[in-house]
Amino acid sequence: MAGSSFGKIFRITTWGESHGPAVGVVIDGCPAGLALEENDIQAMLDRRKPGKGEYSTARAEEDRVQILSGVFEGKTTGTPISLMIENRDHRSADYSQIRDVYRPGHADYTCDEKYGIRDYRGGGRASGRETVCRTAAGAVAEKLLGELGVTFKVRPLRIGGVPAEKEEEVKDLLEKAVREGDSLGGIAECVISGVPAGLGDPVFDKADARLAAAVMSIGAVKGVEIGDGFAAADRCGSENNDSFRADESGNVCKRTNHSGGILGGITDGSDIIIRAAFKPTPSITKEQSSINREHENVTLSVKGRHDPVIVYRGMVVMEAMAAITILDMMLENMGARAENVISFYGNRK
Amino acid sequence: MAGSSFGKIFRITTWGESHGPAVGVVIDGCPAGLALEENDIQAMLDRRKPGKGEYSTARAEEDRVQILSGVFEGKTTGTPISLMIENRDHRSADYSQIRDVYRPGHADYTCDEKYGIRDYRGGGRASGRETVCRTAAGAVAEKLLGELGVTFKVRPLRIGGVPAEKEEEVKDLLEKAVREGDSLGGIAECVISGVPAGLGDPVFDKADARLAAAVMSIGAVKGVEIGDGFAAADRCGSENNDSFRADESGNVCKRTNHSGGILGGITDGSDIIIRAAFKPTPSITKEQSSINREHENVTLSVKGRHDPVIVYRGMVVMEAMAAITILDMMLENMGARAENVISFYGNRK
Amino acid sequence: MAGSSFGKIFRITTWGESHGPAVGVVIDGCPAGLALEENDIQAMLDRRKPGKGEYSTARAEEDRVQILSGVFEGKTTGTPISLMIENRDHRSADYSQIRDVYRPGHADYTCDEKYGIRDYRGGGRASGRETVCRTAAGAVAEKLLGELGVTFKVRPLRIGGVPAEKEEEVKDLLEKAVREGDSLGGIAECVISGVPAGLGDPVFDKADARLAAAVMSIGAVKGVEIGDGFAAADRCGSENNDSFRADESGNVCKRTNHSGGILGGITDGSDIIIRAAFKPTPSITKEQSSINREHENVTLSVKGRHDPVIVYRGMVVMEAMAAITILDMMLENMGARAENVISFYGNRK
Amino acid sequence: MAGSSFGKIFRITTWGESHGPAVGVVIDGCPAGLALEENDIQAMLDRRKPGKGEYSTARAEEDRVQILSGVFEGKTTGTPISLMIENRDHRSADYSQIRDVYRPGHADYTCDEKYGIRDYRGGGRASGRETVCRTAAGAVAEKLLGELGVTFKVRPLRIGGVPAEKEEEVKDLLEKAVREGDSLGGIAECVISGVPAGLGDPVFDKADARLAAAVMSIGAVKGVEIGDGFAAADRCGSENNDSFRADESGNVCKRTNHSGGILGGITDGSDIIIRAAFKPTPSITKEQSSINREHENVTLSVKGRHDPVIVYRGMVVMEAMAAITILDMMLENMGARAENVISFYGNRK
Repeated sequence: MAGSSFGKIFRITTWGESHGPAVGVVIDGCPAGLALEENDIQAMLDRRKPGKGEYSTARAEEDRVQILSGVFEGKTTGTPISLMIENRDHRSADYSQIRDVYRPGHADYTCDEKYGIRDYRGGGRASGRETVCRTAAGAVAEKLLGELGVTFKVRPLRIGGVPAEKEEEVKDLLEKAVREGDSLGGIAECVISGVPAGLGDPVFDKADARLAAAVMSIGAVKGVEIGDGFAAADRCGSENNDSFRADESGNVCKRTNHSGGILGGITDGSDIIIRAAFKPTPSITKEQSSINREHENVTLSVKGRHDPVIVYRGMVVMEAMAAITILDMMLENMGARAENVISFYGNRK
Repeated sequence: MAGSSFGKIFRITTWGESHGPAVGVVIDGCPAGLALEENDIQAMLDRRKPGKGEYSTARAEEDRVQILSGVFEGKTTGTPISLMIENRDHRSADYSQIRDVYRPGHADYTCDEKYGIRDYRGGGRASGRETVCRTAAGAVAEKLLGELGVTFKVRPLRIGGVPAEKEEEVKDLLEKAVREGDSLGGIAECVISGVPAGLGDPVFDKADARLAAAVMSIGAVKGVEIGDGFAAADRCGSENNDSFRADESGNVCKRTNHSGGILGGITDGSDIIIRAAFKPTPSITKEQSSINREHENVTLSVKGRHDPVIVYRGMVVMEAMAAITILDMMLENMGARAENVISFYGNRK
Repeated sequence: MAGSSFGKIFRITTWGESHGPAVGVVIDGCPAGLALEENDIQAMLDRRKPGKGEYSTARAEEDRVQILSGVFEGKTTGTPISLMIENRDHRSADYSQIRDVYRPGHADYTCDEKYGIRDYRGGGRASGRETVCRTAAGAVAEKLLGELGVTFKVRPLRIGGVPAEKEEEVKDLLEKAVREGDSLGGIAECVISGVPAGLGDPVFDKADARLAAAVMSIGAVKGVEIGDGFAAADRCGSENNDSFRADESGNVCKRTNHSGGILGGITDGSDIIIRAAFKPTPSITKEQSSINREHENVTLSVKGRHDPVIVYRGMVVMEAMAAITILDMMLENMGARAENVISFYGNRK
Repeated sequence: MAGSSFGKIFRITTWGESHGPAVGVVIDGCPAGLALEENDIQAMLDRRKPGKGEYSTARAEEDRVQILSGVFEGKTTGTPISLMIENRDHRSADYSQIRDVYRPGHADYTCDEKYGIRDYRGGGRASGRETVCRTAAGAVAEKLLGELGVTFKVRPLRIGGVPAEKEEEVKDLLEKAVREGDSLGGIAECVISGVPAGLGDPVFDKADARLAAAVMSIGAVKGVEIGDGFAAADRCGSENNDSFRADESGNVCKRTNHSGGILGGITDGSDIIIRAAFKPTPSITKEQSSINREHENVTLSVKGRHDPVIVYRGMVVMEAMAAITILDMMLENMGARAENVISFYGNRK
């Protein structure tokens, strides 16, 4: 219960620090008989890779995933799928600059307060490095979701306050940030299509709440909204309510989708829309003031190459977390009606 | 696991529909020896009562809480605390208007899709009525948190797009909404002071993620942010990072609190700041178009007296959910260091 | 997580002390659309009632169950089913004899050690009274299991060391125990038929392990075995292995059922056989030596009418716990194969 | 929730099949600051090694544990401890004999029924191989428990029906079993000393129930008892109740320990006594009848070297599971009293 696991039926547990020999994830509860090979996972890891987003760091991070268990003759067996990604060159860095200093915006101080000990070589578990494991698990979830007709689209909406479609302006901003040793925040959106109506529960495990927890658990995310989110707060009910409508065949749709595909915590069959606010990368080379472990005031500059913005890589992690959550809710939902349970076991015998 | 429970150590389970005989909550895991009586809980229920917020509905809802178990001679015994609140006059209403119609913005359609059956007398579990149980449980959490030096402040920030401090303007807006049979959304803020550093976990159970899930599980909430939230996304790192600073006695503080008291998922000892976006009340008397259970297009007007805005009552529920989450993290955190475990059992024997 | 909940999908939470106003149980995760009324539950409560077993106490305990939520127009709605049973005459007793004394064989001492406070009016949560809630929840589980073709049979095997079929001898033993202010232990067996193959998981959540936890969580149970249990330990493999066999239609059966219907933690379609050892009722009028809260040596005799043997009532609770466990595993198992998940959502859309 | 995790605060997740590249375990929730190195774990793995028990198989299984995360500079960091043990020579075997045949007493048939797919190279997850992971996690638990004054002793009680102290007779039995291609069952006992009073909860999470689930989840175990267990069922209350007694300093002890250190589900400070019945090894070379995947009747003989008895190795796993359970309850118990929570956070600030 120390918080390295996520999900109820499709349940993942991640492990590993940014500067240990490897990181990994154990997926328990993946249905058996799903075709799965390392390449299925690798493709999604590559999307998260630095350098894919044009402005992400050029540091060569060759993330090769290995399947250690749970797959036999190309199919999942229903047993835990253990995935491991080695950390290349994790021994070579020079940590002297951050060893005794609490970097602003990082978990250095809070980890020391909680545990009384900290892996000073990097962000430890709070490092973005951990998210490679979530991405790998998300790829497995998406493999099955693909067969269930569920698809995902993520895109940046804003970078440093500028709409992402203004590409030149964003480019200039990012180059300026790199030049000045600074970083930028941004907003990303994930749209999930093909989700059946009926997922989620009406109280604590509302689909909104579970997706919010999923996305807010990504290190740099400090805000989450579903559908119109904060904009809905400025509206009146007659504007914000989505009218239902039936076509001549009796198929149900909504005229609008302000609710982002979730009503009363349960999916309504429309697209699910999630937006996340990513704070600017806390690692900056610009000089900052802080304290050290002896609680003395110091100044520091975080050397090394850092992503000037987290959004491009972070939105892949956001998609992965959303995929894990949706699949988990789909599995959980199968027993919601007595008639379905009776038919399942009746047909089986 | 059907989502009516929340929390890990201090764990609550709510039950009851808006139109059944009663609603209630079972609190499992409340530490023993806490002085507790019904009045401690009643005070918080009264804050949530309609009519307390000036613009909340005048319908007389006399919520009297009963303690059915877990308290003996005025103190908690460590066993489940069962709280029940009867639903007065729950039999008298006329449901004919909504029996076969799916109200826009409500869970009517989605519940029918999930369960194939719906309590058509009201919102069922997705009703705001359920939140009286959370509020009662929150009051118990706050009783213990008070002895731990943790305090809560909630306030409305915006109503219908207008800053809440412009009281006259807000009043006019609300009166107009009532007159027109419409409703308004709004934003509320909860500030939690006195939280020790070190709560929360660095990965999935980040303090941000747990608070986000807690608050987003309130029916009308469609957006949550911690600290500066979405505003941080428009900033650069050198602005957004909170510098640590030590005074001459070595006490640590931060110059700013953009992070809202949480770094890398773990509390840093500063105030925790949460904001929630509440959508406008979906029940409006203005005519809307929708469909019925036979998937025919219809128009409807939701009769009865409704809160024109949820924020005033909802922010009390928000405080309750935050309290439950904070206490839960405090209990969980006690075993984070081996030295504390050794000292606890060493001193005891 | 303080241990008043049981189950993963079909999850129950019990509350209430033996001497409070009521006891109750909240069932979360019961599939929607199951026909359910109070009489369905009452029938099983009546089987557990003292006086039903010929040698159980004559104290009139009229347990009337009330359904407070989760059922609408005679069917479950998928939301929490809250059941309450009032404690009649719970105020009348005289507790002076046990107020400050730790009764041997009871949880008086251990509760005081754990919580620093104890409801001295009775056994509190550790009382047999709590099991009325499990029985009520078990009745709900059995209602659905009945439609799934799963049936339960419980019977006493031994009472005070004598085979239960020697009815006269047992009767004499029990009368002697009552006469002498003493009590007897015994062994009961539960046989579950119609369980489909494939339930349970191969590692920690083996069907054996879950059933063992379910049954061992009944207060008086100190031993559990599945199939031949302890007898299997004295055998060799060639005797103990159950040979599979196929009839001409290819239907699979086993020549023997030493394994009690579970292989490698997963059900094999044969009858599941569980046996539990119940210790003798710890409340006896015979004089015993013990200590009081001040840790002084005292003697005591527990006045009042007590069941001379727990087995007859306990085996109904055993059946209830088994039913809850089996239904939970059936619900959980529905997503075990990818093909079933695909077919479920494919057929649905 | 697919059952590869165990524990609530100190929570382990195992992964890996008998014939994959490796097996492993992730321990989440281990307190930070515990001195830990691979040798601490290796020692316990060596105790479980085949060949250590005189009659265990001679197959060279060199289990070398690697710590992949969660330990920094020789101390646990509070983050997940990932342990991996490679499977040597896992590619070399010849599986043709069992590929299409369901071995009696194994999970071959039930896994196929559940998942529709089976790793036919061995027992998969249901294999004894998985228990090396539990043993490794148990070693970590015991490291901390050692500092808390808790110690474990396991021993065989009976082998093939013969008391284990009759060493010559047991030796003859085992040699006969090996000669005849057969196997033997047995009973082992685990005694845990130094456990503080107050662990466990009074209802579903009774210490007895948690230990029973822990031990019954070991593949070959088909029976569990606490204290006198089944023997208590043949006794009367005046014999079975353990009288409390205080010495002149007011220290509490019991005259007897029939209850095995647990009263009402909560530890009483006496030794905890658990016994487990291990069935005979199901893999035997003696010819058996069974069926194949096409449900045709066949005969088979399971070739290869097998342990003629599981008890010697299994009792180390039993100790490991008990250690994990006890530590978990100790961590969970720290917040049981409000006064302790207040004192913990009061002293800290």
